[in-house]
Amino acid sequence: MRILGIDPGTKVVGYAVIEIIQGKIVPQIYGAIRASGKENIPERLKQIYQGITEIIQKYHPEVVAIEKVFCGKNIQSAIRIGEGRGVAFLASANAGLAVHEYDATRIKKSVSGIGSAQKYQVQSMVQAILKLPVQPEPADAADALAIAICHYQHSCIPHF
Amino acid sequence: MRILGIDPGTKVVGYAVIEIIQGKIVPQIYGAIRASGKENIPERLKQIYQGITEIIQKYHPEVVAIEKVFCGKNIQSAIRIGEGRGVAFLASANAGLAVHEYDATRIKKSVSGIGSAQKYQVQSMVQAILKLPVQPEPADAADALAIAICHYQHSCIPHF
Repeated sequence: MRILGIDPGTKVVGYAVIEIIQGKIVPQIYGAIRASGKENIPERLKQIYQGITEIIQKYHPEVVAIEKVFCGKNIQSAIRIGEGRGVAFLASANAGLAVHEYDATRIKKSVSGIGSAQKYQVQSMVQAILKLPVQPEPADAADALAIAICHYQHSCIPHF
Repeated sequence: MRILGIDPGTKVVGYAVIEIIQGKIVPQIYGAIRASGKENIPERLKQIYQGITEIIQKYHPEVVAIEKVFCGKNIQSAIRIGEGRGVAFLASANAGLAVHEYDATRIKKSVSGIGSAQKYQVQSMVQAILKLPVQPEPADAADALAIAICHYQHSCIPHF
């Protein structure tokens, strides 16, 4: 099973592809798409869409997991968050991939055992789980790895 | 000048293409994209993206105008609104079209003279401006016509 985890955003989008090989989680790629063009939102969304599409075409994930967002500083920022999510959903749908959403508490709990874990704790736990020589950077990439790991655990253990 | 007006949504998206012929506003097409698949958001967004892309390919607008959204019932609904806007922006950017945003007050004022006009007033005024035999339906299509008319007026009159 190959899982693409996406930590959506309008400027920086974390991504990670993990593969489950004989029950072991093996990261294939992880990193962040950094969209340029500060004020040009359509252009930024185009870069995000293209970036996700390229990862899908290159690493052939079978399913996509994405963080469910409940909060935002205000309505305007929530709309902007939604715009980034919209193109991530679209890139997945256009590749024929199902998308599963997980809320932040569940994602954090799946890697650290604590739903309220801090960003650095998520990074440390992801590093430990995947036996990486260094912490995954940037934090958006670590989050995307955590999202993919969360989907794997969720798909393995019913009612997780 | 050909202008595509979009009234974004996650279930129903109003669209309208108007052309300016010798200073006269001539509607080329207007209607609404109705996305099916209630709970499958990626699938709905795909339909919206495809619908907008098809209109662009068929009617060749040179510019896109879209309603700027400031409000939402709550953060969750604002995120959903953003998802719909994201794919509308993307369809425009992928066709190389610039997108202009106008807030609802300006759009209503541009067709009715009143920033706080009701939906039925917008429909009536759009009908009168375009000399249509009947009111444009559904209301989302009338809104999209109003958005396109707003952009035309804005591009004609500096500091409108």
